[in-house]
Amino acid sequence: MSTPTREIRLAARPHGEPKPTDFELAEVELPDPGEDQVLIRNTFMSVDPYMRGRMNDVKSYTPPFQLGAALDGGAVGEVVASNAEGLAVGDVVVHQLGWREHAVLAGKHVRKVDADGIPESAFLGVLGMPGLTAYAGLLDVAGLKDGDVVFVSGAAGAVGSLAGQIAKLRGHTVIGSAGSAEKVAHLRDDLGFDQAFNYKDGSVTEQLVAAAPDGIDVYFDNVGGDHLEAAIDAFNLHGRAALCGMISNYNATEPNPAPRNMMTLVGKRITLRGFIVTDHGARVKDLIAEVAPAVADGRIQFRETVREGLENAPQAFIDLLRGANTGKMVVKL
Amino acid sequence: MSTPTREIRLAARPHGEPKPTDFELAEVELPDPGEDQVLIRNTFMSVDPYMRGRMNDVKSYTPPFQLGAALDGGAVGEVVASNAEGLAVGDVVVHQLGWREHAVLAGKHVRKVDADGIPESAFLGVLGMPGLTAYAGLLDVAGLKDGDVVFVSGAAGAVGSLAGQIAKLRGHTVIGSAGSAEKVAHLRDDLGFDQAFNYKDGSVTEQLVAAAPDGIDVYFDNVGGDHLEAAIDAFNLHGRAALCGMISNYNATEPNPAPRNMMTLVGKRITLRGFIVTDHGARVKDLIAEVAPAVADGRIQFRETVREGLENAPQAFIDLLRGANTGKMVVKL
Repeated sequence: MSTPTREIRLAARPHGEPKPTDFELAEVELPDPGEDQVLIRNTFMSVDPYMRGRMNDVKSYTPPFQLGAALDGGAVGEVVASNAEGLAVGDVVVHQLGWREHAVLAGKHVRKVDADGIPESAFLGVLGMPGLTAYAGLLDVAGLKDGDVVFVSGAAGAVGSLAGQIAKLRGHTVIGSAGSAEKVAHLRDDLGFDQAFNYKDGSVTEQLVAAAPDGIDVYFDNVGGDHLEAAIDAFNLHGRAALCGMISNYNATEPNPAPRNMMTLVGKRITLRGFIVTDHGARVKDLIAEVAPAVADGRIQFRETVREGLENAPQAFIDLLRGANTGKMVVKL
Repeated sequence: MSTPTREIRLAARPHGEPKPTDFELAEVELPDPGEDQVLIRNTFMSVDPYMRGRMNDVKSYTPPFQLGAALDGGAVGEVVASNAEGLAVGDVVVHQLGWREHAVLAGKHVRKVDADGIPESAFLGVLGMPGLTAYAGLLDVAGLKDGDVVFVSGAAGAVGSLAGQIAKLRGHTVIGSAGSAEKVAHLRDDLGFDQAFNYKDGSVTEQLVAAAPDGIDVYFDNVGGDHLEAAIDAFNLHGRAALCGMISNYNATEPNPAPRNMMTLVGKRITLRGFIVTDHGARVKDLIAEVAPAVADGRIQFRETVREGLENAPQAFIDLLRGANTGKMVVKL
């Protein structure tokens, strides 16, 4: 026996913005699970900006997608057949073979989750990669400790909104920046940030100093540039920044010259540390233990944009890169 | 009984470059040491660039010098009378009451040193603040570990030359940059650096990449600006920079815009960490245990510029700020 299913393949390497013709929907027959393997019916798959980089044939820290082969990425699904110890039919699991309706893979590459009271898609967002990025960035990279005042840039984004809420959950004073009055209101009114400002309203440094008159201790950086410069100015002694991404640089055609106050790193004994979430996989158990109950009872909120059907996954990905999403973008299969 | 002695006082706060009239030589009668105190005859005192900052009446992390009062700073001397446990007449000690020929202070503010085979002035240089800066910067701030390739900028300076030599002593590959052909030859021929280049000969990035074709793991930064940018480009994954000073910024009238490649901190998981040596005083015992034997047998070399007489200390300090020294500047009393 085998399982007929469908998958999305990379048909052509995109030049610039991906087009629908760069993708191909293929029907395949999936073999039955072998020894120690499981067959999974995927219920949600993730589309993420980092996937665009893997569509280029360049040397990087993650190998590129192969032409003519199925794409992959985060997915959540239900076990429908199992030869793997500890995994039974009906279990909800998370794994890395997204972009397809069914997957066969070794039990050791599958993580069983307890989805009681939690929407399954959350395991691709708040309890998945974006959540882990926020959690590990705050705790392991920035070394969050009691009493720290926390500043988060890009605070209305998938990662930033979780970084701020996790810090609030732990009792910290949290300041966020975002790029519209609506987002600023969302941070203050819905997510419980203590202070929030629109970086388009004026000098980031002046707005940050006004929002944090006693200085900041931890900065979760999604923006770089003027925001990093402002954080360095606002840091107290021994301030620590977790550098998660630098949106301000992504579309720059010239190298980005900021921050101009690097000298301040010495006198204030400041640490800036870049990180990539894939180094912090061991933290996912802690993330779920601490954050899943807060998701279940509503203390942590998240937004997501849900598209339907594998055949619409390429367009979901294209739209994601154009910023059409609010919160995490997922595809329901 | 009391001890007649001399001290240098701050007569006026310097505007810009200090002048001789900003200082005053005063004769004083020093009281006998009280309970738990010692009387020390100073043999060498240190002049250091950081003292210039303390001559301004501005809020900083170290309190300013007071007008009309004696200056202070690192000194080495000999105990001539003692009421303090563990300190005997004839002991060689290090303390912070420089700028005077004798000092009375509590035994707990005095550190006894074993000067066997080591010139006393070394306790103000290679085994004093500059040495501790190099040692703590490499080990505690940059987290030096086996196999790391180390790049040191300002490598012919008092701190840089020790950072490079301590890394060599521990078996690392060490690359240094300096600002003249003579200094570069000194690094290679006298101090045992594996590679050295003159940053004035061309692009720092190109020269660093040529000197370290397999990348660098640790950067000891005395320069900032283009050197920090070059180090970020040359870093391997998980590279770490100890930010000690940024000479390239000191005389800048405009904020210094480099480095332009901060984005790279994220992908390579790079850490930049500023530090000040006064946070690392607990490391001085380790410094002396590891480095003093290497000073005594010549494996670690250092240069110094020695001026004679307390009355010449202000001019020594003025000349230091003009760069008239080679290696550590001290005054023999």
